[in-house]
Amino acid sequence: NFRQCCDQPKNTNVRISLPAVCCIWQIAMIILFGIFIRYNEESDAHWIDHKTSNNISSNIENDFYFRYPSFQDVHVMIFVGFGFLMTFLKRYSFGAIGFNFLIAGFGLQWALLMQGWFHSLDPMDGKIKIGVESMINADFCVASCLIAYGAVLGKVSPVQLMVMTLFGVTLYAVEEYIILSLIHARDAGGSMVIHTFGAYYGLSISWMLYRPNLDQSKHRIGSVYHSDVFAMIGTLFLWMFWPSFNSAIADHGDGQHRAAINTYLSLAATVLTTIAISSLSQKTGKLDMVHIQNATLAGGVAVGTAAEFMLMPYGSLIVGFCCGIISTLGYIYITPFMEKYLKIHDTCGIHNLHAMPGVIGGIVGAITAAAASEEVYGKEGLINTFDFMKEWKYMVPTRQGGHQAAGLCVALCFGIGGGIIVGCILRLPIWGDAPDNSCFDDEVYWELPEDEENNPPTVEYNNHMRNKAV
Amino acid sequence: NFRQCCDQPKNTNVRISLPAVCCIWQIAMIILFGIFIRYNEESDAHWIDHKTSNNISSNIENDFYFRYPSFQDVHVMIFVGFGFLMTFLKRYSFGAIGFNFLIAGFGLQWALLMQGWFHSLDPMDGKIKIGVESMINADFCVASCLIAYGAVLGKVSPVQLMVMTLFGVTLYAVEEYIILSLIHARDAGGSMVIHTFGAYYGLSISWMLYRPNLDQSKHRIGSVYHSDVFAMIGTLFLWMFWPSFNSAIADHGDGQHRAAINTYLSLAATVLTTIAISSLSQKTGKLDMVHIQNATLAGGVAVGTAAEFMLMPYGSLIVGFCCGIISTLGYIYITPFMEKYLKIHDTCGIHNLHAMPGVIGGIVGAITAAAASEEVYGKEGLINTFDFMKEWKYMVPTRQGGHQAAGLCVALCFGIGGGIIVGCILRLPIWGDAPDNSCFDDEVYWELPEDEENNPPTVEYNNHMRNKAV
Amino acid sequence: NFRQCCDQPKNTNVRISLPAVCCIWQIAMIILFGIFIRYNEESDAHWIDHKTSNNISSNIENDFYFRYPSFQDVHVMIFVGFGFLMTFLKRYSFGAIGFNFLIAGFGLQWALLMQGWFHSLDPMDGKIKIGVESMINADFCVASCLIAYGAVLGKVSPVQLMVMTLFGVTLYAVEEYIILSLIHARDAGGSMVIHTFGAYYGLSISWMLYRPNLDQSKHRIGSVYHSDVFAMIGTLFLWMFWPSFNSAIADHGDGQHRAAINTYLSLAATVLTTIAISSLSQKTGKLDMVHIQNATLAGGVAVGTAAEFMLMPYGSLIVGFCCGIISTLGYIYITPFMEKYLKIHDTCGIHNLHAMPGVIGGIVGAITAAAASEEVYGKEGLINTFDFMKEWKYMVPTRQGGHQAAGLCVALCFGIGGGIIVGCILRLPIWGDAPDNSCFDDEVYWELPEDEENNPPTVEYNNHMRNKAV
Repeated sequence: NFRQCCDQPKNTNVRISLPAVCCIWQIAMIILFGIFIRYNEESDAHWIDHKTSNNISSNIENDFYFRYPSFQDVHVMIFVGFGFLMTFLKRYSFGAIGFNFLIAGFGLQWALLMQGWFHSLDPMDGKIKIGVESMINADFCVASCLIAYGAVLGKVSPVQLMVMTLFGVTLYAVEEYIILSLIHARDAGGSMVIHTFGAYYGLSISWMLYRPNLDQSKHRIGSVYHSDVFAMIGTLFLWMFWPSFNSAIADHGDGQHRAAINTYLSLAATVLTTIAISSLSQKTGKLDMVHIQNATLAGGVAVGTAAEFMLMPYGSLIVGFCCGIISTLGYIYITPFMEKYLKIHDTCGIHNLHAMPGVIGGIVGAITAAAASEEVYGKEGLINTFDFMKEWKYMVPTRQGGHQAAGLCVALCFGIGGGIIVGCILRLPIWGDAPDNSCFDDEVYWELPEDEENNPPTVEYNNHMRNKAV
Repeated sequence: NFRQCCDQPKNTNVRISLPAVCCIWQIAMIILFGIFIRYNEESDAHWIDHKTSNNISSNIENDFYFRYPSFQDVHVMIFVGFGFLMTFLKRYSFGAIGFNFLIAGFGLQWALLMQGWFHSLDPMDGKIKIGVESMINADFCVASCLIAYGAVLGKVSPVQLMVMTLFGVTLYAVEEYIILSLIHARDAGGSMVIHTFGAYYGLSISWMLYRPNLDQSKHRIGSVYHSDVFAMIGTLFLWMFWPSFNSAIADHGDGQHRAAINTYLSLAATVLTTIAISSLSQKTGKLDMVHIQNATLAGGVAVGTAAEFMLMPYGSLIVGFCCGIISTLGYIYITPFMEKYLKIHDTCGIHNLHAMPGVIGGIVGAITAAAASEEVYGKEGLINTFDFMKEWKYMVPTRQGGHQAAGLCVALCFGIGGGIIVGCILRLPIWGDAPDNSCFDDEVYWELPEDEENNPPTVEYNNHMRNKAV
Repeated sequence: NFRQCCDQPKNTNVRISLPAVCCIWQIAMIILFGIFIRYNEESDAHWIDHKTSNNISSNIENDFYFRYPSFQDVHVMIFVGFGFLMTFLKRYSFGAIGFNFLIAGFGLQWALLMQGWFHSLDPMDGKIKIGVESMINADFCVASCLIAYGAVLGKVSPVQLMVMTLFGVTLYAVEEYIILSLIHARDAGGSMVIHTFGAYYGLSISWMLYRPNLDQSKHRIGSVYHSDVFAMIGTLFLWMFWPSFNSAIADHGDGQHRAAINTYLSLAATVLTTIAISSLSQKTGKLDMVHIQNATLAGGVAVGTAAEFMLMPYGSLIVGFCCGIISTLGYIYITPFMEKYLKIHDTCGIHNLHAMPGVIGGIVGAITAAAASEEVYGKEGLINTFDFMKEWKYMVPTRQGGHQAAGLCVALCFGIGGGIIVGCILRLPIWGDAPDNSCFDDEVYWELPEDEENNPPTVEYNNHMRNKAV
C-alpha cells in the first residue's frame, strides 16, 4: 500500500535527480520568459518617450527610486535573513544557507511568471511586464516557501525542496490573486498572504512527512555556541529590515512612510516581552537563545496587514507586546505539544514565528480596517489607503473588515490544503531524503571539510610555529 | 555604610526583576504613546490633502524618500554594528548581541518620547508628531547608550543596562535640546551629542562600578579566532554605513551629499594610520585585531560635527589621519593606564573610539564653523548650512564657533555628571550583577548549548559516518 | 642574476616597511587632495545657487538621491562582500578581511585622484570635482584590485598588496579612460573594465610570483566548517547587491531600472546551474561549498556590460545559465590544470569567477550592442542608452559592437601586460612576503589570540561552573 511504498529504505544519492531538476526547470524558465516576460514601461528604453507622453517631469518619478532601496532590504531578508536564521543547528549550516539559496533562486523566477499571469499581463500583447515592484513581489512569494522550509529543515532533500517550492509558488500566486484581487483584501506586509499561508503550508507538509523514529537524529537538533551567533545574523537582518518588508509595496508617500513606522515600533515592543517571558520561563531567569532568535520577530509578522493603515503608534506597540508573549509561550509549550500529540515536527518553530502571528496579523488588519473612519483618514486618505476605487468605489470600511477576514480564511485553506496534497507527493520514495538517523546532518548532501582537530599537520605546524616564537 | 551595603554577596537571579522591568516599562511606553504620539503630516493618511494645500507636486517629495535609505543604514549600525563589534570576547557573544538588542529596543521607544517632548511637540494639540527623521533621531539617541554599554560590557546585569538606558536616554534628550536648540550648535553626525556624551557617561559609570578583584575573570577578557571574525562583522558594518550616519539628518541636497563624502574620506584615511601604528607597536610588526576592529572607526566619530560643513576633502583626510594614530595609541597606552591608575575599566576601549575622537570632532567642528566665510559657502549657502535664520539671523561664523565649543562642554558635563549619579544608583546590590569571578561569561544570564567537544554522541556518530564512508 | 636575487631567504618583519608605506602614501594623498580635489556643484554649499540658476525645482533632483542607495550597496560588496568571501581558508580570515580593508581604504583615495584626472577635471580651475558618482567609481576601481588579491591570497605581504594596489589603480584609470572615453565602449557593470582587467592583472602577478614549493603550505589551503559559513556571508552580500553594482552608474531612470532587473535574473539562473554541475561532479551527488561560494556569482559578472542594454529578461537568464555551468566546470577542471601546467596558482579561483565570466560579459555586450535597433529601443532610447551624442552622434549599433569588442581587448592587454610588469617588481626580495611553508597563515602578520582548547583556565572554569550547576 501507499504507506509501505513510501517507507522503503532511503537512497540519498541525488546525483541524477538534483541536476536534472535544476537544469530542466531552468531551461523551462528561459523558454517561458522568452515567450512571456518583457520590461515594463519604466524599465524599457522607451521610458524617455513614456515620460514625454505622460508629462512626467523627472527621472526621479520612476518607480525605481520609490522602491529600489526597499527591494534591496527585502532581498537581504530573503537570502541572509532566512538563510542565516536557520544556521542554528550544529551541523546543518551548509544545508540551511545553501538550500535556502537554491530554492529562492528558483522560486523568484517561477514567481515572476505565476504572479505575472495573474497581475501584470498586458492585454495588448499578452506579455507580462516586469519592474521593481515585480521583483519585490517575487521575493515576497519566495518568502512563503522559505517559511515552509523552516518546518522541514534538515528532514528533506534538495529535490523535495524544489518540488515544494514549485507547488508553493503556484499556490501562492493563486491565493494572492483571490485575496488581493477578487476579495479585495489589503495586505501590504503579507501577514495573511505570505506568513499564514507559508507557515500552514510548511506545517502540513511536515505533518505528512512525520518521522516516528526521528529521535535517532535527536542529538543533532541542538545548537553550539557559534551556530547560535551565526543565527543571530539572520535574526537581526530580518528584524532591522522588516520595516522595509512591510512598506515595500505600500502606497507611495504616506503609505510607505506609515508602514515603516508601525513595523519599527511593533518590533521594538516584541523584543522586550520576548525577553521578559524567556527569563520568566527558566528557574534561574536565564534567557534562551531560541526565543531571542525567533520570537523577537513576531511583531513584524503580526503588524504586516495593518502596517499601512492608521494603526496608530500605540496600536503597533500593543500588537508587538502581545506577539512577543504569545510567540515565546509557543516555543515553550506549543511546539513540544505539537510534536508529541499532533505528530507535527517543526524544526524552526515556524508555528510560533509565522503561523500564530500571521493569523493575529490578519485579525488585527480586519479590525483596523473595520474601524477606519473619514475622521481619522480624511476623505481622500480613506479612498487612497483602502483603494476604494473603480469597481470598489462603494465599499465601506466595515465591509472591508469582513473582506479582510475572508482573505485570512482563504490563506489558511490554501496553506493547509495545499500542504497536505504536496506532502503526499513528497512522501513518495523517489526524492532522495535522508534516513531517520541522518537528519539534520550536512554530511548527507555536502562535501564537508575535515575538522581542524582531526587534522594532525595543522596542530603540529602550530606547535612548531609556537616553539619557534618562543 | 553605602560601600558595605553595595558590596554584599551577589545574586544573579534576574527571574523576577528582568521580566518586571521589561513588562512594566513596555506597558508604560504603550500608555505614553497612546497619550502623546501621533503620525506627522508626511506619514498620516491626510498627506494627500497636505500635498494639495502645500502645492507639493509629487509623492517623492515626502521626507521618507530623502531619509529612509539612510535610516536603514543607521538601523544596521545600531543592531548589527554595535552588537557584533562587542562579540570579540570569547564567551560573551550572547550577552553582547542580546543585551544590545534589548536596550536598543527599549531605548528607541523612550527616545521617541523624550526627544519628542523637546523637539516635535505640536503646540496645537499637545501631541508629538513622528516621522522618519524621528526614527533616525531615536536610533542616534540609542547609539549613545550602546557606546556606554561598551565600557561596562560583561560586568553588569541586563537590569542594570535597562536602568542605565532609561537615564541615558533622558540625559541625552536634555543635553541634545540644550546643545542644538538653546546653544544653537550644529552637530549632524553627533560627535558631541552622541559620542562625547555617550562615552563619558559610560566611563563614569564604569568608574563608579569599579571592581578591584576583576582579575578573577581576567582569563575570559580575551578573544578567540572566531570571535574576532564575528567582531569584524560589526566593525565593517559600522565603517561602511558611517557616511549614512553622519548624513542622515543633514540638510536635504548638498548637506547630505557633503556629509557622506567627508565621512567616506575620513574613514579611509583612518584605516591606513591605524594599521601603521598597530604594526609599529609590535616587536615584529604584527598587527593587532583589537586596533583594526576599533581604531579604524575613529575617523567617522571625529568628522561627525563638521561633516556637513565645507571641511574640504583634504580636511576630512587630515582628521581621519590624526584620529587613526590617536585612537590606536589610546589602545596601547591609555586604556591600561586608566585601568591601573584611574580605576576605570573600559572593556571595549570606548575612550579611544568614542571619547577622544568625539572631543576632537567637537573641536574640529568649532574651528571649521569659526572659519566659515561667504566666499567658501556663498551667501545663501552659509545661512543654509548653519541655519542662520529666525532668531539666529544675526549670528556670524566666528560666534558660531564659540557656540560649538560651548556645546562640547555641555556634552562633557552631562556625560560625566550623569554617569556618576547613575553609577551610584547602579552600585546598589539589587540589580543582579555577576560576582567578580563570573564577569564576561554568558553562563550567568544565558542557557548555553553544550559544546560540541563535550557531546559524545556527535563525535561517535561522526566517526561512524566516516568509517562507513571509508 | 634576477631569479637568484629574488629567491633569497624571506624576512617577514614588516615593522618598518608597512608603517612607512601607509604613512607616506597617506600623507601624499592629503597633499594631492589639498591641491586637486574639491566638492562638485551638487555637494558644494553653492548648490542652493546652482539650483536657482539651473531651474532645478527640488533637492530630490540632486544626484545623491539617485545614486546613494546603490553606492552603499556597492560599498558593502567591497568591504564585507570581498572581505568575507576570502575568509574560507582555515587560518587566513584575519588576513582576508584585514588586508582587504587596508587596500580598499588606500585604493579608493588613489582612485578618486587617478579617475578624477581623466574624467572630472574642471578646465576652469584645474580641480577635480567629486560627488556620489565619484565615490561609486572609486569603489569600482578598488574592486578590480580586490579581485586581483583573490589570486594571490595568502601568498603575499601587506606591503606587496599596497604596491599592487597602487599600480592596479593607476592602470585601471588609464584603461578605463581608453575604453570608455576614447573607444566609447559602454560598460555599466564593468565586465571588461573591472572584472576582465582585475582578474588577468591578478593572474599574471600570481604567475610571476609562482612558488614551486607551495605544497609545504598545502595543509592550510582548505577550509573548516565555520570558515565556510563565514565565506557565505561574503557570497550572499555580493550576490544580493550585485543588481546595485551593475546599475549604480547606469543612466537615471530606465537605465538603472533595467540594469537591476537583468542582474537579478541572471544571478538567479546561475544558482541553479551551479548547483546542478556541482552535484553532477561528485560520485554521490554531494555539493561542494567552493562552487556555491563562487560560481553562483558568475552571472552577475557576465551580465555587467549588457545590463543596461535591452538584453531582455530571457537573455539575462541565458547568460546566467551558461556562466553557472562554465564557472563551476572551471573550478573542477581549469584551476587544477592552470596550477599544474601553467604554473598559475589561483587561491580563490578568480579565473572562474571573474576572468572567464568577464570575457563572456564583454562578448555578450558587443553582440547585444551590435544587435540594437530603433524598433527595440525607440529612436530617443537608442541615443540615450548608447550615448550617441556629441562627437558620437553618427555612431550606429553595429559599429558600437565593434567598439565594445575593442574595449574588451584593451582590458585584456592592460590586465596581462600590467600584471607581468607589476609581478616582476613584486618578486624583489624586499617586500616581506612569507616563506613557502608559512603561506595561508595569519600567524605571520597578526597577533593571534590563543585557541580556546589550549587555554586551561577556561576549561577548568567551565567544569567548575557545570559542577556547581549540578
